[in-house]
Amino acid sequence: MSESKKTVFVVGLGPGGGQFLTVQAQSALQQAEVLCGYTVYIDLVRPLYPEKECYTTGMTREIDRCRWALDTARAGRDVALVCSGDAGVYGMASPLLELAEEYPDVNVEVVPGLTAALSGGAVLGAPLAHDFCVISLSDRLTPWEVIEKRLACAAQGDFALALYNPSSKGRPDYLRRAVDILLANGKAPDTLCGSVRNIGREGQEKHILTLSQLRDTEVDMFTTVFVGNAATRALSGRMVTPRGYRR
Amino acid sequence: MSESKKTVFVVGLGPGGGQFLTVQAQSALQQAEVLCGYTVYIDLVRPLYPEKECYTTGMTREIDRCRWALDTARAGRDVALVCSGDAGVYGMASPLLELAEEYPDVNVEVVPGLTAALSGGAVLGAPLAHDFCVISLSDRLTPWEVIEKRLACAAQGDFALALYNPSSKGRPDYLRRAVDILLANGKAPDTLCGSVRNIGREGQEKHILTLSQLRDTEVDMFTTVFVGNAATRALSGRMVTPRGYRR
Ligand SMILES: C[S@@+](CC[C@H](N)C(=O)[O-])C[C@H]1O[C@@H](n2cnc3c(N)ncnc32)[C@H](O)[C@@H]1O
Ligand SMILES: C[S@@+](CC[C@H](N)C(=O)[O-])C[C@H]1O[C@@H](n2cnc3c(N)ncnc32)[C@H](O)[C@@H]1O
Repeated sequence: MSESKKTVFVVGLGPGGGQFLTVQAQSALQQAEVLCGYTVYIDLVRPLYPEKECYTTGMTREIDRCRWALDTARAGRDVALVCSGDAGVYGMASPLLELAEEYPDVNVEVVPGLTAALSGGAVLGAPLAHDFCVISLSDRLTPWEVIEKRLACAAQGDFALALYNPSSKGRPDYLRRAVDILLANGKAPDTLCGSVRNIGREGQEKHILTLSQLRDTEVDMFTTVFVGNAATRALSGRMVTPRGYRR
Repeated sequence: MSESKKTVFVVGLGPGGGQFLTVQAQSALQQAEVLCGYTVYIDLVRPLYPEKECYTTGMTREIDRCRWALDTARAGRDVALVCSGDAGVYGMASPLLELAEEYPDVNVEVVPGLTAALSGGAVLGAPLAHDFCVISLSDRLTPWEVIEKRLACAAQGDFALALYNPSSKGRPDYLRRAVDILLANGKAPDTLCGSVRNIGREGQEKHILTLSQLRDTEVDMFTTVFVGNAATRALSGRMVTPRGYRR
């Protein structure tokens, strides 16, 4: 790694404002000369680093952001490309590393962050204390049949689940369809579930409900949905999955 | 919540020393009057809070630690019960919340942390950028048949995987058995895999290899193992799972 080689840090910010940043993420943001990301996430960190130059783009311009970050590093400045939650989980690390193949003269460093499954899990209690799956219901980049198959396998294995992208304008009924697949593959209708909206942000809201109630619940894209395993219980208003199957 | 009610914070420290603490975890450790946990994890944070009283126990004394923390809070002091990684994921949050049912006069607050799947994932690149499962190979609290079933379902769904507790003294061949189940359920022998030992600690080591090579690899309990999905690729020595199935 030559002295003059510049770095793109791809930084997971955690779910909300500064409270969820790790020390490592703070150092990366500090070292970077430019911050780059989707407008909403830049707005979360801009107040913490008011002196930094920022480059923001709309939500779907992900490849543009990666290219901009790599070009800027090539031109001589360290860049932090920020994502909500973790940098890897449905985040920018993967497209950035793919594109970075064209930029052998730039370093890439992945800085992990608290993904919504963990931060939302802590709000609910301990829903993911045993084996679990993380599945996105977005079919923007994944065929719906793949998502269906994974939901079926997760239910058959009695995994606890965290569901990302549970809804959006174009597909208001995807959560219902997902719940139907879980029910058809062995999850009981009274399986304990939860949802957390705006984790770590203003207006954070949590709900605990059964799988059959979840079927008829509308959620938005700022929500992460949790489905328990067969042993998950409500304890004093919290969603708790036991660590073991034997006690 | 009455003024005099004391709190047990169950705090995920992330994988290693201070670098992976979140701001929220730092505040909880600061507010607590006593730190409590498994000796190894207390040793990771003690240098950061040299003035704090610490209560340490051996690894398997988990219920003792929970009870000690709740009794200490009942007696009038805020306590931080620390775990490595996340507080929820195979951590202390779940047993603590179960036992806390007997302590309605004590608050419990779950403080999430970077679980090994995320911190180890960042070391490897972006192995968990698409849907994934987290499975523990420890049968201390879970019957082996349940673990086998989940491995089979994860393979059938072409999930990426993070495997915790991949080995221990009593069960040196569990990883091999797990790999055989994955192979028998549709994972190709050349599926890209990775392992990270001592994430964020002295002596951190990473390896990238195929699933058939993984079958003949010995790992220890300080290691997290990653198995890719069908699209996972090695890019410049990193393990990268694409965000989507369509490009
Ligand atoms: C494209 S994914 C990005 C995930 C992110 N990289 C992470 O690790 O959390 C977007 C989805 O993550 C979940 N999510 C992210 N941040 C959230 C928050 N603050 N509150 C609730 N859900 C959130 C929602 O399900 C949302 O639809
Ligand atoms: C009982 S689990 C605890 C998991 C922890 N609560 C977490 O969220 O990371 C222990 C297993 O986690 C993984 N692990 C935890 N910390 C690790 C580290 N620093 N490096 C590698 N693996 C780790 C290993 O697979 C280990 O056997």
